[in-house]
Amino acid sequence: MKTTRTQNLMAAALVCALALTTTLAQGADPSTPLGAGPLASWNDGKARQSVMGFVERVTKPGSPDFVPVVERIATFDNDGTLWSEQPMYFQLAFALDRVKALAPQHPEWKTTEPFASLLKGDVKGVLAGGEPAIFQIVMSTHAGMTTEEFEKIVRDWIATARHPKTGRLYTEMVYQPMLELLAYLRANSFKTFIVSGGGIEFMRPWTEKVYGIPPEQVIGSSIKTKFELHGGKPVLMRLPEVDFIDDKAGKPVGIHKFIGQRPTAAFGNSDGDLQMLQWTAAGPDTRLMVLIHHTDAGREWAYDRKSPIGRLDKALDEAQAKGWTIVDMKKDWKVIYPFENK
Amino acid sequence: MKTTRTQNLMAAALVCALALTTTLAQGADPSTPLGAGPLASWNDGKARQSVMGFVERVTKPGSPDFVPVVERIATFDNDGTLWSEQPMYFQLAFALDRVKALAPQHPEWKTTEPFASLLKGDVKGVLAGGEPAIFQIVMSTHAGMTTEEFEKIVRDWIATARHPKTGRLYTEMVYQPMLELLAYLRANSFKTFIVSGGGIEFMRPWTEKVYGIPPEQVIGSSIKTKFELHGGKPVLMRLPEVDFIDDKAGKPVGIHKFIGQRPTAAFGNSDGDLQMLQWTAAGPDTRLMVLIHHTDAGREWAYDRKSPIGRLDKALDEAQAKGWTIVDMKKDWKVIYPFENK
Repeated sequence: MKTTRTQNLMAAALVCALALTTTLAQGADPSTPLGAGPLASWNDGKARQSVMGFVERVTKPGSPDFVPVVERIATFDNDGTLWSEQPMYFQLAFALDRVKALAPQHPEWKTTEPFASLLKGDVKGVLAGGEPAIFQIVMSTHAGMTTEEFEKIVRDWIATARHPKTGRLYTEMVYQPMLELLAYLRANSFKTFIVSGGGIEFMRPWTEKVYGIPPEQVIGSSIKTKFELHGGKPVLMRLPEVDFIDDKAGKPVGIHKFIGQRPTAAFGNSDGDLQMLQWTAAGPDTRLMVLIHHTDAGREWAYDRKSPIGRLDKALDEAQAKGWTIVDMKKDWKVIYPFENK
Repeated sequence: MKTTRTQNLMAAALVCALALTTTLAQGADPSTPLGAGPLASWNDGKARQSVMGFVERVTKPGSPDFVPVVERIATFDNDGTLWSEQPMYFQLAFALDRVKALAPQHPEWKTTEPFASLLKGDVKGVLAGGEPAIFQIVMSTHAGMTTEEFEKIVRDWIATARHPKTGRLYTEMVYQPMLELLAYLRANSFKTFIVSGGGIEFMRPWTEKVYGIPPEQVIGSSIKTKFELHGGKPVLMRLPEVDFIDDKAGKPVGIHKFIGQRPTAAFGNSDGDLQMLQWTAAGPDTRLMVLIHHTDAGREWAYDRKSPIGRLDKALDEAQAKGWTIVDMKKDWKVIYPFENK
């Protein structure tokens, strides 16, 4: 090889100059910390110290725990870890709104469950149908159009739909301390990924703007798509058929499929994240496993072992037994949502 | 928001300082161009001008063709586009070597096709069995172990197996002009992805070192994996069941599934890449579609419309009709392999 370190350094310097120009041109990173210094919205307790201590150990050259940049992978659950998930998963609210919008084209829904309950406003009745009911609603509202059409539907909804309790846009109900954590990890050369049980195509249209996470770093559940030529124009049609469920034991499978490396750090909040945390913990060398515990009934919601949404039971036991980091939202976070700072 | 551009600039500067330090620490980028300037191994003809003109247009601020950094996605086929694929796909050579290694544990293979032909050294007889025969060989050699075990098998093979004609390691038979192209695109803030019909887990163990492409930017065909606890230790078992075929109409599906954005530029060499190129071309704004045409029987191989491996027929017609860029390996490339420069 005729290349030299000097050439590499010059190339790196050039890229950096471009990056600085780009930053200047584009303005604020959506996930830049609001306060001063890293993790400014975190109280100085065990959770913050655990995260920062870990990052310092794996990024310090010469440290026995040093992790090369290419292996700095951090995975985050979305619902309940990066944004709220009560009183129901936000994507379910989206699906319910879609049922209402599509109802005029489906007169049969008036007498067919779970649609009939839903159209009467009986969400509890819908949820009583369990996973099969939710599955039916998702398939009838998420399939049968091109990927471009679906993306537009999501973009329109996420820009306008509001949370029933707070009246806020759903994308305002993200956790300020987690935005800071994402930015802090990226500043330390981590690649940040979402690994969610939610729909991959429901998240990708807005994660870059809201979390600074580009579409290719979003992993989620999916339905199948098929390449077709419509009048000579290539499209991808969304089929009413499950491709992949990125939850529970599916999370390590999804991580392996999409990332191909074991995470160095993983963040979740429910039993659906347990296997992701186990898979992360089983790697050689230092790893960081974090659970967000919903303990703040005043500013957010308080729920764990008995909640039908975001149940945290087995994973809490295992985190306690194995000494994983547990974030107590009430004690550890100065603010929950970015709008509290305004 | 209380953040300022100054804070963002300082954060970017910090990241840059870290990146420079890392570059210094890690030494040469494997895919840095050998010569001076970008695309040094390309003759100054239509192909080189087409690629460089495109990159200049989409990266120049204020240009009507400007593409934001987050959307700069370039996808590359692997076999025949980044490395050679004759006289048979290199992964098939791997599978055949695995059959030989595993034969003592499978006495029944001596009398069962396609294994019997293979063990007699009759590769043509194996290939006569078509896709079902190859499928059977792949399943019997690529499944039934953990992902970690398979990765080790691939690493050991790729470090030692040699090409029957050149006697070189397979990873030496990558195209120097394409290494330069990958580096040139990355220097212009493109993310470079592999989108190959080959096995995703056959490529990921070495693409970072050879191409500078990290595991999470490699897309390929896959078999299913399953999360299991073996004596309390989490593993992913490789199952003898197809998960995804990333070829032909599967390539746009794979791109959408893994990347979630349409490529700005796509590079292929065979009819298996046609739909990827069509999908890329169908995007709004400027796109770059490139076919590598194998025209050099002296330094590499010459084949196209009638080759059973890497057939280039329909895609060649469409490229000519639509004015896509066609690289004539014999005329456009000063060298084929990096070792020619030594």
